[in-house]
Amino acid sequence: MLDQPFLSVTIELLDGLGTVAFAVSGALVGVRKNFDLFGILFLAFVVAVAGGMMRDVLIGATPPAAMHDIHYFVIAMASGLATFFWYPRIANRTRLLQFLDAIGLALFAVVGTQKAIEYGVNPVMSALMGMLTGIGGGMIRDVLSGDVPFVLRADLYALAALAAGSVVAVGTLVGIPSIYAVLAGTGLCLFLRFMAIYRRWRAPLPPSAAIRRPEAGD
Amino acid sequence: MLDQPFLSVTIELLDGLGTVAFAVSGALVGVRKNFDLFGILFLAFVVAVAGGMMRDVLIGATPPAAMHDIHYFVIAMASGLATFFWYPRIANRTRLLQFLDAIGLALFAVVGTQKAIEYGVNPVMSALMGMLTGIGGGMIRDVLSGDVPFVLRADLYALAALAAGSVVAVGTLVGIPSIYAVLAGTGLCLFLRFMAIYRRWRAPLPPSAAIRRPEAGD
Amino acid sequence: MLDQPFLSVTIELLDGLGTVAFAVSGALVGVRKNFDLFGILFLAFVVAVAGGMMRDVLIGATPPAAMHDIHYFVIAMASGLATFFWYPRIANRTRLLQFLDAIGLALFAVVGTQKAIEYGVNPVMSALMGMLTGIGGGMIRDVLSGDVPFVLRADLYALAALAAGSVVAVGTLVGIPSIYAVLAGTGLCLFLRFMAIYRRWRAPLPPSAAIRRPEAGD
Repeated sequence: MLDQPFLSVTIELLDGLGTVAFAVSGALVGVRKNFDLFGILFLAFVVAVAGGMMRDVLIGATPPAAMHDIHYFVIAMASGLATFFWYPRIANRTRLLQFLDAIGLALFAVVGTQKAIEYGVNPVMSALMGMLTGIGGGMIRDVLSGDVPFVLRADLYALAALAAGSVVAVGTLVGIPSIYAVLAGTGLCLFLRFMAIYRRWRAPLPPSAAIRRPEAGD
Repeated sequence: MLDQPFLSVTIELLDGLGTVAFAVSGALVGVRKNFDLFGILFLAFVVAVAGGMMRDVLIGATPPAAMHDIHYFVIAMASGLATFFWYPRIANRTRLLQFLDAIGLALFAVVGTQKAIEYGVNPVMSALMGMLTGIGGGMIRDVLSGDVPFVLRADLYALAALAAGSVVAVGTLVGIPSIYAVLAGTGLCLFLRFMAIYRRWRAPLPPSAAIRRPEAGD
Repeated sequence: MLDQPFLSVTIELLDGLGTVAFAVSGALVGVRKNFDLFGILFLAFVVAVAGGMMRDVLIGATPPAAMHDIHYFVIAMASGLATFFWYPRIANRTRLLQFLDAIGLALFAVVGTQKAIEYGVNPVMSALMGMLTGIGGGMIRDVLSGDVPFVLRADLYALAALAAGSVVAVGTLVGIPSIYAVLAGTGLCLFLRFMAIYRRWRAPLPPSAAIRRPEAGD
């Protein structure tokens, strides 16, 4: 894992902040979809832990970390309750939430990739597992609330996570000290997210988009 | 696990009855959504086993119990076929189905929590795993049939399961004989479900519900 | 597993062709739903591996084979990119795609059933795991793109996979050499799919379909 206690503490702190942003994103969807208090807290928790749980199940690290470690639960409950009671005030902090969410995405992707590598997963799949850690919670949130997962359409969200994971996977492969790989991966993810938010960078659409037929059987 | 053979047999019986209700709830959705025979049986089976399978995967009890034990399969097929052939007659037994469903929910939650505790999961997550055992099948049913899971919005359904799981988890923690914890948890779950059905008890909605903006970015 | 190297190579080849068809089916949905390049590749990959991953998680074969073996990833990326750039041309090859897809379905079901049996799963659940291997990717594709999984309503798709799995499971049970069970299962699956496509064979609808009430509570 990480060889430096300071880095380790910083990462846990950022991971906590990211978890807050993830949980709030779940709770906001719950409020907007008219879920009750339970549904709101449930979505908050799901966004916070589902990505990591899917990763752990897939890499064979069962039971998943979130089963032992209730700090995700506590953070999710607190974030969900805050959103429940102060919905408009929290929902209006769009920029702050996007910023924290980008941090969460970067951290989850970086730490998720490292964990997959530790479990002997090959580098390509490790980077994908890092991405899954970052985007999995949001995907489940969207599916449960009846939406097509927004990560499939927009905003370099998943790609930013995958970029972070790839940097860590390549870094590990070529033997760079993990602190540099972590910093570079996190930085790249944040950069891509901010370019997506402020400059509207996007992944390309299919060249056939203009001439596509509305529905083609299958 | 349970220390008394009589309790153990009673629980298996109630578990079977609950499984019938769960499978029927899946088959009813299948009929209403115009699925064919296969789709109807598939949904019946999914509701009966998906919650327990998710729990087992998450607590590391793989392969899940339902992989060895085909009585869930048999119950689900019989319930699904009955619903297929006698749809209106079965669908009209709303009260009976709600009663059996409440029993299934309570039993799945109680037994699910106990199993998680046996596997060394901490009490908070064990109660949540009990809840997942109870509500997981219905959530997958709703997602597969294109609905937002109703447990996220209504009826104290998940909360009743969580209450049952919490009673068992706390009971185990303070060392109460499991028979009392099981009975108390089951009773509380049934009580909450009946209050939800007959007295329309609900979990609270966000205070901001009245002033909520229709869509707020993100 | 398989006792004959020639059969083994043939199966790997057909498995690869089937994976192409599965990945293309994911990418086509992505293009039609206006996903960007990332979303398209993601769906292509999901259809190719999700069924096998779910099977492996459920039978306790973690980490799933797809975590070690990146040839699914490579096939999915190539198929997804081809679909991205040449959408109309590929989408128009309906018959070829249906043919390859039927091969993929049969192979995934047969190989999935064999793997479950090897892991000690009972025959009934092994056949179901074979079916899940075949249909799981398509189900996740449909859920992620906001549709009700088409396997729940149509075309003997899942039933053909289940038939293939059942033949293999029964064949193993009665001690038939695996090559015959594999050939018979594959043949039956292909036959059922072609009858569904060309003769419109269907699973039965509930007898109550005509007299069904539009919505019946619960």
